[in-house]
Amino acid sequence: MGSQGLPPTVAWRNGAAWLIDQRILPGELKVIPIHSAAEMADAISSMVVRGAPAIGCCAALGLLMTAASHASCGRPEFDAAIDADAALLKRSRPTAVNLGWAVDKLLATAADVNGGPLAAFAAMEACAIQMLEEDVAANCSMGRHGAALLPQSGGVLTHCNAGALATVGYGTALGVIRAAVEQGKSIRVFADETRPRLQGMRLTAWELAQDGIPVTVLADGAAASLMRSGCVDCVVVGADRIAANGDTANKVGTYSVAISAARHALPFYVAAPLSTFDLALRDGLEIPIEQRDSSEVSHVEGVQLAPNGVDVWNPAFDVTPAELITAFITELGVLRPPYHASIAGAFRAAGRRQP
Amino acid sequence: MGSQGLPPTVAWRNGAAWLIDQRILPGELKVIPIHSAAEMADAISSMVVRGAPAIGCCAALGLLMTAASHASCGRPEFDAAIDADAALLKRSRPTAVNLGWAVDKLLATAADVNGGPLAAFAAMEACAIQMLEEDVAANCSMGRHGAALLPQSGGVLTHCNAGALATVGYGTALGVIRAAVEQGKSIRVFADETRPRLQGMRLTAWELAQDGIPVTVLADGAAASLMRSGCVDCVVVGADRIAANGDTANKVGTYSVAISAARHALPFYVAAPLSTFDLALRDGLEIPIEQRDSSEVSHVEGVQLAPNGVDVWNPAFDVTPAELITAFITELGVLRPPYHASIAGAFRAAGRRQP
Repeated sequence: MGSQGLPPTVAWRNGAAWLIDQRILPGELKVIPIHSAAEMADAISSMVVRGAPAIGCCAALGLLMTAASHASCGRPEFDAAIDADAALLKRSRPTAVNLGWAVDKLLATAADVNGGPLAAFAAMEACAIQMLEEDVAANCSMGRHGAALLPQSGGVLTHCNAGALATVGYGTALGVIRAAVEQGKSIRVFADETRPRLQGMRLTAWELAQDGIPVTVLADGAAASLMRSGCVDCVVVGADRIAANGDTANKVGTYSVAISAARHALPFYVAAPLSTFDLALRDGLEIPIEQRDSSEVSHVEGVQLAPNGVDVWNPAFDVTPAELITAFITELGVLRPPYHASIAGAFRAAGRRQP
Repeated sequence: MGSQGLPPTVAWRNGAAWLIDQRILPGELKVIPIHSAAEMADAISSMVVRGAPAIGCCAALGLLMTAASHASCGRPEFDAAIDADAALLKRSRPTAVNLGWAVDKLLATAADVNGGPLAAFAAMEACAIQMLEEDVAANCSMGRHGAALLPQSGGVLTHCNAGALATVGYGTALGVIRAAVEQGKSIRVFADETRPRLQGMRLTAWELAQDGIPVTVLADGAAASLMRSGCVDCVVVGADRIAANGDTANKVGTYSVAISAARHALPFYVAAPLSTFDLALRDGLEIPIEQRDSSEVSHVEGVQLAPNGVDVWNPAFDVTPAELITAFITELGVLRPPYHASIAGAFRAAGRRQP
């Protein structure tokens, strides 16, 4: 169900999590094992794996490994261990809400088991495996709902990577594009390179090329003039956390793209599963924005390009206000403004508890 | 009169042009000699030197070297040689109008001389030296006129490098900032790194640090959220060509910054000498936009970061429509909308011929 040429971004095999090491793509495709929650927290914070849905599933597997290694303890010790590692995993990156959502879901699953650690582990494993399967299924649903929004023939701009590599497989924004192409639509993707870590150029361009979908890379600053040239019919991006009013945190630069899309009267779509929505937050001001190391900007591939000691501002994400978003593409369908109502309605339909 | 710590970006000494090699900054500060028009055309197209005012002066010096090397020929041969190299120099980069302006000015100077090549050369040399001096003087005037527009204390965002390194010295946009700092204003500069060639991170951050002016570098995509954070009071950029209606070509990404500035109700200023205005062009649609090699995007410091064979769109410039520009800062003063009238008025005041 994923991208045709790719192994899954995240897999659970022989008691270990297996991840594509995204730091070395596109030069090298390497799948590496992760053996503990601590290793997983490192893999998430160092961006071996990134993308909100993917890191949610990875955190779940990290916690599952703690459960496995404490399965022969007493239940209190088991519970203390998974609580501690849940906190560790949640701290690994602050902005994507899927991480906390997935960890909390596994904790709740364990809490619901009255038996010993072995029984709790078994329930958690079933929950985690289902989470990985549901991630791909949700992406395929998003694809079905979203593909109708894309032109029969035209250009779609995206920012960062919201593809198979940001999920277990198929992708959110790129899942919508994949579904449109599978329906016979003729789509050229324009991929912002996405500084500082270049996920657009390194990951999006690579995974689309694997599937034979035409892709053109551009510097982030060129997106506005590309829109003005008439080559772009709409924008589709992913998300890291969406507040109850629809304000959306996504990779830094997304806000700039949304402003430019509005100026050129182009639809701006956000593709994300319900697990990326955080109804506990009223609006985008409440979303925590991760600041990352200045070396991500000042150095490229270990080579220093900035003057010595220069001050750098390096937020990993920005917030696009809901008013700039034409629609959300979710696994339950397309949500339109007013978002407070349509988002709440989707959660009611999903039978999920609202905070 | 230039930046305190820097040699001039362009100098004429012992029959050669001496240029700071901007491709290796900030790692190394090296001044290299250029001995012929062909070498100068290469230096301009390979971006040893860049920035509209600087490459105008460099092209003038390139042509001057042709005149020097043909000073012992007959006048027809001399004229044919300078005509041919004028065309060569004009072709070296297409967008900045200063290049053609400077070359044509030297050709006209030669044409006005009735005597032989030696006399023509002498007149051209005087003209070129005056052009270099006037460039710095114009920048200082821009600084005086523009400094009043900056806050007493606050943040100024700039894109690319419109500094001492883009001119003979002092700079256009950075000249305005230097003048404000010299007046005692407390300015922090936010420098977009400016992909693909990173002139903001490599050059602007470096030259401001030489002068002790506080500077923070950010990825281009982060500019919109920086504006939203309240840290930016206004934007000041340079220009490569300005049409009669005020539409302005500048480094790719400028248009995106202007759109974001408008959304955040921040003043957006363009600092440029009259030699950057091209009254022969009605609007920005007529400005030729240089497309540069895809490797500028796909590779950094010679290291390939994009997948093999990926398609790249790499325009060197974009056009910001006049309606997004709050004012132009020129050596004759600040020009406000309606620009067709204020620009034409400035040219009348300067006693220049309008096409």
